[in-house]
Amino acid sequence: MMIKNVLGRVLPEEINGLKTIPYQGVGKYIPRGRKAAPPIASCANYPSDGNKVVSSLREALEKCGLRDGMTLSAHHHFRNGDKLMNMLFDTAAEMGVRDLMFYPSATFPCHEHLIRHLDAGVIHHIEGSLNGPLGAYCSAGKMRGLGVLRSHGGRYTALQDGEVHVNIAVIAAPTADPFGNATGSRGPSACGLLGFALGDSQYADKVIVVTDNLEPFPCAPFQIHGNLVDWVVVVDEIGDPSKIVSGTTELTKSPDRLYIAELTARFIEAAGIMRDGFSMQAGAGGTNLAFAIFLRDLMREAGVKARFIRGGSTKYLVEMLEEGLTDFILDGQTFDTVAVESIRNHPNRHVTTSPFTSYNYHSKGNFASIVDVAVLGATEVDIQFNANVATHSDGILQHGLGGWPNCLAAKCTILALPSFRDRIPVLVDEVTTVCGPGELIDVIVTERGIAINPRRQDLLDATKDAHLPVRPIQEIQAEVERICGGKPEPPQYGENFVAAIKWVDGTVMDALRELR
Amino acid sequence: MMIKNVLGRVLPEEINGLKTIPYQGVGKYIPRGRKAAPPIASCANYPSDGNKVVSSLREALEKCGLRDGMTLSAHHHFRNGDKLMNMLFDTAAEMGVRDLMFYPSATFPCHEHLIRHLDAGVIHHIEGSLNGPLGAYCSAGKMRGLGVLRSHGGRYTALQDGEVHVNIAVIAAPTADPFGNATGSRGPSACGLLGFALGDSQYADKVIVVTDNLEPFPCAPFQIHGNLVDWVVVVDEIGDPSKIVSGTTELTKSPDRLYIAELTARFIEAAGIMRDGFSMQAGAGGTNLAFAIFLRDLMREAGVKARFIRGGSTKYLVEMLEEGLTDFILDGQTFDTVAVESIRNHPNRHVTTSPFTSYNYHSKGNFASIVDVAVLGATEVDIQFNANVATHSDGILQHGLGGWPNCLAAKCTILALPSFRDRIPVLVDEVTTVCGPGELIDVIVTERGIAINPRRQDLLDATKDAHLPVRPIQEIQAEVERICGGKPEPPQYGENFVAAIKWVDGTVMDALRELR
Repeated sequence: MMIKNVLGRVLPEEINGLKTIPYQGVGKYIPRGRKAAPPIASCANYPSDGNKVVSSLREALEKCGLRDGMTLSAHHHFRNGDKLMNMLFDTAAEMGVRDLMFYPSATFPCHEHLIRHLDAGVIHHIEGSLNGPLGAYCSAGKMRGLGVLRSHGGRYTALQDGEVHVNIAVIAAPTADPFGNATGSRGPSACGLLGFALGDSQYADKVIVVTDNLEPFPCAPFQIHGNLVDWVVVVDEIGDPSKIVSGTTELTKSPDRLYIAELTARFIEAAGIMRDGFSMQAGAGGTNLAFAIFLRDLMREAGVKARFIRGGSTKYLVEMLEEGLTDFILDGQTFDTVAVESIRNHPNRHVTTSPFTSYNYHSKGNFASIVDVAVLGATEVDIQFNANVATHSDGILQHGLGGWPNCLAAKCTILALPSFRDRIPVLVDEVTTVCGPGELIDVIVTERGIAINPRRQDLLDATKDAHLPVRPIQEIQAEVERICGGKPEPPQYGENFVAAIKWVDGTVMDALRELR
Repeated sequence: MMIKNVLGRVLPEEINGLKTIPYQGVGKYIPRGRKAAPPIASCANYPSDGNKVVSSLREALEKCGLRDGMTLSAHHHFRNGDKLMNMLFDTAAEMGVRDLMFYPSATFPCHEHLIRHLDAGVIHHIEGSLNGPLGAYCSAGKMRGLGVLRSHGGRYTALQDGEVHVNIAVIAAPTADPFGNATGSRGPSACGLLGFALGDSQYADKVIVVTDNLEPFPCAPFQIHGNLVDWVVVVDEIGDPSKIVSGTTELTKSPDRLYIAELTARFIEAAGIMRDGFSMQAGAGGTNLAFAIFLRDLMREAGVKARFIRGGSTKYLVEMLEEGLTDFILDGQTFDTVAVESIRNHPNRHVTTSPFTSYNYHSKGNFASIVDVAVLGATEVDIQFNANVATHSDGILQHGLGGWPNCLAAKCTILALPSFRDRIPVLVDEVTTVCGPGELIDVIVTERGIAINPRRQDLLDATKDAHLPVRPIQEIQAEVERICGGKPEPPQYGENFVAAIKWVDGTVMDALRELR
């Protein structure tokens, strides 16, 4: 009962009761049908004074009719400082509810607490990124359903397309009003955006906003519309501010990583991408932050101004905005306190976006493909330029997909990464888990040189006189294997599938088995 | 084949092929079912560089598959300066298309031009407010289908509920980018908001943005999401700026109207509504503007600050915002250039809203019922406090419903109006056309005194020692009839129904017959 997709990856025929649609290539699978249609509500059934506050999360869940087998969702804008997801399932456990499906936009190490609820049967399975302890739990074959990993855009798409039907969405809100209007830009737990909760607010049957900072109507400007919210709950603390935004964002100090960052910036300049009005996106890892700083310096020198920078926003991007090096930040996720303030201070130029605007592939276009250059990381890349971000070569689920698969749509996608980690090669014959197809990955920048995808003759031509260390990927791979003493050991898998990796269009790109 | 609703109004059994749901009382009709579900799109079918610009409106309509019998929609933010609606149907006529249903958010005298397309069969009928010439055309029985008048909220609700299915929405945008992101706050045809086009962008199968001010991606902040837009068309001029926003907003100079405005403000103070943190909404007519100024002066004197003011925004509201007399303007429609600038200058305090947030009755609450006091006008009021805004006592369709029926949900609704116009009484035994039920109308302020709805004993009590000219409505009516020499002449109707007035929940409140 297994099938193979166009990449040769073996997949289960069904995933959590739904027939698998195998990955067919970029842009090949075209959906049919109509968007999910939430129930029609009536103002007659809601308090006319707009006050939807109830006394506890339990009361709200009861009013929403929580029962066995339902799907609950939550967002991850509080990152490792989130307190709501654990609170939610503690409450569900108290209520004696079982077999819930959980559909978070991501989980963090602080959600290890959920393992007890998986063990006890309160949670049946989780469809969402499974980082750290939850990933290890899933990889060990302990979860009853399959873990389904989706990109940020793919998660929105699954809601929109009705592939995942959320019964009750629970939205942690740094500031809200009694009507349910909510924002992430203010309050003790300010996290910047709430874009990851947008799809949940639009498509869930019932929506609960939980806040520790209630203010009088209107909480304006609002990121979540109270008109979509059923109930509002006030709690003492929805998050640990020190872990929600870091206050400072750490740059890498590793000479190798700094070199990778510099090479990446120089490549972008040499390839002619860094021109007036260009656009870019860079992640928030230490290497990517350093890259942004190198590029900023090159932009200053050349007198070049970007039209927009997509974030993950940080103080470095805010500095570029304030210095006039970019017209706009289009923010998808806010990584430090300076960026949170910038959303408040520059509402016309530091613009909040969402997985809908930026990444939803089942849409009339999205922002991701308009970006000139995206600089991303990966855990592994193979000589077909396929890349992995979910596992390392040990096959253990460890990282979520995030916006990574969506960002591959950029006009030029660069993976900036070390060629090996802990003496294990990152450049491999075939990635352990495919998360993104080689046809969308244009350039690999490592400390041992730059590999350009042979499909991009234009980039090879543009950079041939630039005195950059451009080399065939196989040559870098061979060098790395010499240093590391060979290829990585493949994982030892059992029989059962434990997780699936969805491509941005909802098709299945890869499936993971339990580890022996 | 006629039915009667709970107000005793006679209605046709069917309206444009749909079974009539008669009005049943405020909050009595509860909808079932699910929201409309637009087709799922795919980025694979849209240009990856985000450039959706085509060469002409005709090309865009062809690409959208325009054909006989379809429903087209457009918004009225350009008011009497709109050039798009006429352009749209001129193009449809050129293409030889027939029997279109037109679903505008409102029409203005400049749309008299559409009569030729109604006569010629290009347009089958119009569901939307029918002002001036189009109203007279409809009232004369010349339109093939029934004119269906909906409130701003009801129009959104009909889209959301799938009662009206728009095939192609055409959105005039003062500024847009090639992806279709659009805003009303900038450009030569700047109109402030684009909220009336929100529902169309969300629920139409195909969406065309037409602009005379294209700027590079991203047009940010955007009010219309390009992700919902199929094609973008650039034309020389989408509107006549001098007629879109007036530049100056005229206050009434009539001593009677000024007295009504002053009485209204004094009533609100006396009733204890004007207290710190209160909220209000006032229309943009000359009397209402004058009222806002009287109230502002009372607020200053008493040191009272509002939490929010809902607009129709004007320079007077902007002055109150800038003076700190209100925390927020929640804007639904922008009436002058100062207000348009204010949206750009105060993005955190002059907040754009939409019929979805403010008025959609099939929602989990809306803003309208949270407002402490709404001051509105009317063409007629009867001694049951039912009111009319669509016709005068001659029965000719002349005004759209606008947000008026939605605003009646305010905690206190005041109609501020002259007791007669052109020697015809405005206070009548029974309104010619019912647009709003008396149970929601609390106070009538006229130049001959204030009538409080007997249902509102609390308001009678609160104002009894305030030295305000509070009188029974019948007493004012009798006085007006003495002055005018009797009651108004009833219109002479024919047999055929020509139009229907929908209540905010989609039920039918009244129906109009052709005039003899």
